[in-house]
Amino acid sequence: MTVTKAEEHDLVLRTFRVLIADLVQHYGGGHPGGAMGMAAIGIALWKYTMRYSPRDPNYFNRDRFVLSNGHACLFQYTFLHLVGYEHMTMDQLKSYHSNELESFCPGHPEIEHPGIEVTTGPLGQGIANSVGMAIAAKNLAATYNRPGFDVVDSRIYCMIGDACLQEGVALEAISLAGHLGLGNLTVLYDNNQITCDGSVDITNTEDINAKFRACNWDVLEIEDGCNDVDGIVAAIHEAKTTSKPTLINIHTIIGIGADIQGTAAAHGAAFGTSSVEKLKEHFGFDPKEYFVVSPQVYRFFGDAVIRGEKLQRDWSDLVESYNAAYPELGADFARRVKGELPSDWKKYIPLEFPSTPTATRKSSGLVANPLAQHINSFMVGTADLTPSVNMAYKDKVDFQNPEVRVSCGANGDYSGRYIHYGIREHAMCAISNGLAAYNKGTFIPITSTFFMFYLYAAPAVRMGALQELQVIHVGTHDSIGTGEDGPTHQPIALTNFYRALPNLLYLRPCDTEEAAGSWECAIEAKSTSSIISCSRQNLPQFVGLTDRNKVKLGAYTLYGPDDADLQILGTGAELGFGLEAAKLLEQRGIRVRVISFPCVELFERQSKEYKASILRRGKVPTIIVEAYAVNGWERYATAGFSMSSFGKSLPGKDAYNFFGFTGEKIAHKIEKYYKSFQEDHDSLWTFQDLN
Amino acid sequence: MTVTKAEEHDLVLRTFRVLIADLVQHYGGGHPGGAMGMAAIGIALWKYTMRYSPRDPNYFNRDRFVLSNGHACLFQYTFLHLVGYEHMTMDQLKSYHSNELESFCPGHPEIEHPGIEVTTGPLGQGIANSVGMAIAAKNLAATYNRPGFDVVDSRIYCMIGDACLQEGVALEAISLAGHLGLGNLTVLYDNNQITCDGSVDITNTEDINAKFRACNWDVLEIEDGCNDVDGIVAAIHEAKTTSKPTLINIHTIIGIGADIQGTAAAHGAAFGTSSVEKLKEHFGFDPKEYFVVSPQVYRFFGDAVIRGEKLQRDWSDLVESYNAAYPELGADFARRVKGELPSDWKKYIPLEFPSTPTATRKSSGLVANPLAQHINSFMVGTADLTPSVNMAYKDKVDFQNPEVRVSCGANGDYSGRYIHYGIREHAMCAISNGLAAYNKGTFIPITSTFFMFYLYAAPAVRMGALQELQVIHVGTHDSIGTGEDGPTHQPIALTNFYRALPNLLYLRPCDTEEAAGSWECAIEAKSTSSIISCSRQNLPQFVGLTDRNKVKLGAYTLYGPDDADLQILGTGAELGFGLEAAKLLEQRGIRVRVISFPCVELFERQSKEYKASILRRGKVPTIIVEAYAVNGWERYATAGFSMSSFGKSLPGKDAYNFFGFTGEKIAHKIEKYYKSFQEDHDSLWTFQDLN
Repeated sequence: MTVTKAEEHDLVLRTFRVLIADLVQHYGGGHPGGAMGMAAIGIALWKYTMRYSPRDPNYFNRDRFVLSNGHACLFQYTFLHLVGYEHMTMDQLKSYHSNELESFCPGHPEIEHPGIEVTTGPLGQGIANSVGMAIAAKNLAATYNRPGFDVVDSRIYCMIGDACLQEGVALEAISLAGHLGLGNLTVLYDNNQITCDGSVDITNTEDINAKFRACNWDVLEIEDGCNDVDGIVAAIHEAKTTSKPTLINIHTIIGIGADIQGTAAAHGAAFGTSSVEKLKEHFGFDPKEYFVVSPQVYRFFGDAVIRGEKLQRDWSDLVESYNAAYPELGADFARRVKGELPSDWKKYIPLEFPSTPTATRKSSGLVANPLAQHINSFMVGTADLTPSVNMAYKDKVDFQNPEVRVSCGANGDYSGRYIHYGIREHAMCAISNGLAAYNKGTFIPITSTFFMFYLYAAPAVRMGALQELQVIHVGTHDSIGTGEDGPTHQPIALTNFYRALPNLLYLRPCDTEEAAGSWECAIEAKSTSSIISCSRQNLPQFVGLTDRNKVKLGAYTLYGPDDADLQILGTGAELGFGLEAAKLLEQRGIRVRVISFPCVELFERQSKEYKASILRRGKVPTIIVEAYAVNGWERYATAGFSMSSFGKSLPGKDAYNFFGFTGEKIAHKIEKYYKSFQEDHDSLWTFQDLN
Repeated sequence: MTVTKAEEHDLVLRTFRVLIADLVQHYGGGHPGGAMGMAAIGIALWKYTMRYSPRDPNYFNRDRFVLSNGHACLFQYTFLHLVGYEHMTMDQLKSYHSNELESFCPGHPEIEHPGIEVTTGPLGQGIANSVGMAIAAKNLAATYNRPGFDVVDSRIYCMIGDACLQEGVALEAISLAGHLGLGNLTVLYDNNQITCDGSVDITNTEDINAKFRACNWDVLEIEDGCNDVDGIVAAIHEAKTTSKPTLINIHTIIGIGADIQGTAAAHGAAFGTSSVEKLKEHFGFDPKEYFVVSPQVYRFFGDAVIRGEKLQRDWSDLVESYNAAYPELGADFARRVKGELPSDWKKYIPLEFPSTPTATRKSSGLVANPLAQHINSFMVGTADLTPSVNMAYKDKVDFQNPEVRVSCGANGDYSGRYIHYGIREHAMCAISNGLAAYNKGTFIPITSTFFMFYLYAAPAVRMGALQELQVIHVGTHDSIGTGEDGPTHQPIALTNFYRALPNLLYLRPCDTEEAAGSWECAIEAKSTSSIISCSRQNLPQFVGLTDRNKVKLGAYTLYGPDDADLQILGTGAELGFGLEAAKLLEQRGIRVRVISFPCVELFERQSKEYKASILRRGKVPTIIVEAYAVNGWERYATAGFSMSSFGKSLPGKDAYNFFGFTGEKIAHKIEKYYKSFQEDHDSLWTFQDLN
């Protein structure tokens, strides 16, 4: 008896859906409905179109798959199982959501597990990540491919649900992807019209196809997305033929086959034993058998491993001849594939800098621009602040769709490494995560905007830190020194978030020398995201005092004796006030040590002894001077000269003055505090707000 | 000689543009180009269409104007001056950006100044605020208007630039506004195709009209937006005739008349003396005269004050007859206009609650649902988490376009007070700011989603706090106790941001009694935003220990003697662990006091004496137990049992256990710490991380 392809598909679809219901029921919770509805899409991808290698999940030229609707992770886990990813055993699938610590099946996909390209869950991030991956593939192809040698031609497939299409970060990324003409990106939309609150038309009645077309996407539509594997395959192939990104709008039914199919109830909970039994009967399975996958189903996917191994062999052969034909380019490509920088990268950082007052945003450019110019791993971008953030490097070429000639400003092509992200801070950072995740170290993405607007981007910055992705964010116009733009643009509390965020370096250099050290730390942090926080305004250069090599200590003595009577901690733009105050206090007979504290996270990594030598807890009054909310400095200081309100629209100097940030005012407050300490040593116990 | 209307317009346009250039040149910085390009739009609004009263900027039934491109604030300031807002003198205009502290002309519009509806600047916020205002007006009209008595019929005008249209928060709000059919909203798009980086087509080549139409908006287009006042006026009138929100896409030239018109250089800097002189010559002004506004120009706008006063009189008369015809409704309307709650609002909060374990997300509902049910000031919303956040109250009616019947889920109408925001957290909070700013106290907007996703919404939450708007955010599924959803959903550092943010109450109740106290604090905080942070999982009820009336103290003794040997501080879902540990430590002979610490911000407002009585700094070891990053607790505690990494996908209890959060494990670590303290009292100086 021959089995038709349609019969095979039917068996796989039924098996997959019953298995999902079983797995969710097994744990007693999770997200079954979406995964069940998307089964035919999975077959179209993993059986017929996507290029991957189960035996080597990180095979460089694989297609990337991103599950932007991450809660439907069982969809991905189960296909990884069926096509032969060795780690993804049936027992692993059963560990979904459970308390088995070594599970590869957490509640949302996590990047550290084989076959998972990015961690998703917070909605809208995944599709923006996939835009980053598409940029990565386009850029590598434009940089390295040569006639007959398409050493990079991977495509990006991103699965989204109704929810992702409502999130702002996704809408930003969609708009940019259309502009850039990322024809290597295919987004598969699981259009089941259900979210937690019920029908999508409770909150969204837009014409999604027209919206994507308006954003320069191609749109294809599949009516019977639950069953029409062939239609989806054809659409995926058609998407490869266009120079635009493609949305495949696939109509599905959430929880198809369950008695609550098509409702919100099918979204985020186990169906219950009796419903699962009914589902099995409906699909022709024995209600009392669990986790049934017949040999026929495994056979159906049995060619995936062989196909993957052949892909790898072919690619290796291609790269080998490529290396022969283009030895220099090949060596450079090999370095990128390995995720390495040229070993001598530091040589591009100047050894000396101007000693005239310089804004650290300019300092940052002095350090980073030559690096970005000479090392093609750097992918620099800005959220429409090129004139302000100083990240445009010499001879930069924009990353642009060469088919779109812009009316003014720089044109570019896909080999360009400067991205005009537009006023899309959140997407900028989420896209950069995708660039970094494409293959660790192949790109070092740099983003830039005003520091305050890293609040817009914070969910993406956080996801980068969580995923141990190296992304470097340049936040200029930090603190009230930014001036006239006023309280909306003056960050007060944002540092408190970033200093508390695990695996993120918030680096705040006080001059160009420290900017050099900050960049070095950020570049050496291969599995950590960084923010380099810069002033808008000119700052004095502390030549001979600051030391780039000490930034990695997090904090170090800048001035004064180790056994001083009093210590002042300072960061970035306000360090100068601290130093001024110190000199005034010296004139009044108080011996002061000034400690530059560019990075709390790095300081915390130092030895107990080093930390104690800097902090001298319980021995001397120690005052932090910083124009941010003080929360957290109480660990290091006994008093703070800081901000407890929002800022004010005034010229930078006047804003500082208004809030008491002058050497004289600070010295006055500190002197008073110092005297109270002399009268009562125990006053140190209670942290004092001096401002 | 009669002057034609066209001639008048021409004079006003030229005068306005020269004045803007002068004002920016006067300070030597600022944003001239946009304001100059938008001059004709301003005439259309302030002269011909918008209803407002210069002598009473807060006249209740006025049309609202929101400048979403807030950097172009001189546009608004100057029209306020021309139409006769008394505070806005020419001297005030000259104070733009300057260091005169009492300036009404900061770098971005600020809500505290007359004639400014919301503070704008961070791009995209303003248009979302205006959607909130349109909802407010629609809801009030549907609630209070009766045949012949349109006591509320104000319209919302929002000015946007190219940048706002790229921001995700705007795109979310646009999608929702179209869905809701907010026909009272008109968005005027200053389409000058220039942003900081240059031409918009560097980064955005979408078909903006098609995109808006796909989102259920009407779109009108003005080709010569720099001059065609009549065309703009006609479009504004046409927009009033449709039940959809309208985008008027107005093509303008940035910095028109300047030698750098139409370029990014005209955007954000003074033109320079010679350029301003050339501009004046071009427009027929004397290059050596400054700030010239002829009497003819003032006369042109001279009817604005009278028109405004008539509007007010007519409305007062209308309301008077309305009160006579509908005395009960009239009284309720008067209360809303005054921005008051019924004086007996607290009676809706139950005096007792179930003593069985309850999730604080459920507790929050037990407190807030009856309030929302009975008091129509509450405007409740959720970002698609109705089943999870427990904010749906009895007999709720959805705020919906009655012309759109949704296929499943609740229908509603414009009198409804439950908003399905969709998966649009950022817009939800920005829209809520608009609701709150419509007229202070008329609405108390409530938002809700998982606490982690208040990171998506953080820029809007911050803007609410900055503007002293009362918005109450309900963040459920806080801490690692949220469980299986894993690290993407488990907040670690987010509290550090919100606790550092000025003018925001981050309230974290530990049981239902404290949830009642938290809601009371949030409702009594008329000029402060609040977040009520709730657990997903059931928590023990500390009957007889917790006290709703003490939440306002921020922290209070829950258990144990005042002179205990050791203190444990606890919040929310982890307080129970602290109490368990305390009881275990007692068995080991250590006398422990447990302090519930639901709100740091409120504690900081207490007297020095009260704070000292709670903290006992320098006297006893004090340990904070909380599953968040510890930064900031060092002010109150000597050690912390907290989180220094991201979370983990495990069932809630297992996640707690994995990170050491059990009474036994905590007691063990604290006991060890206590002993080290007995050996060395000075060990208290250095904050200890016990976990």
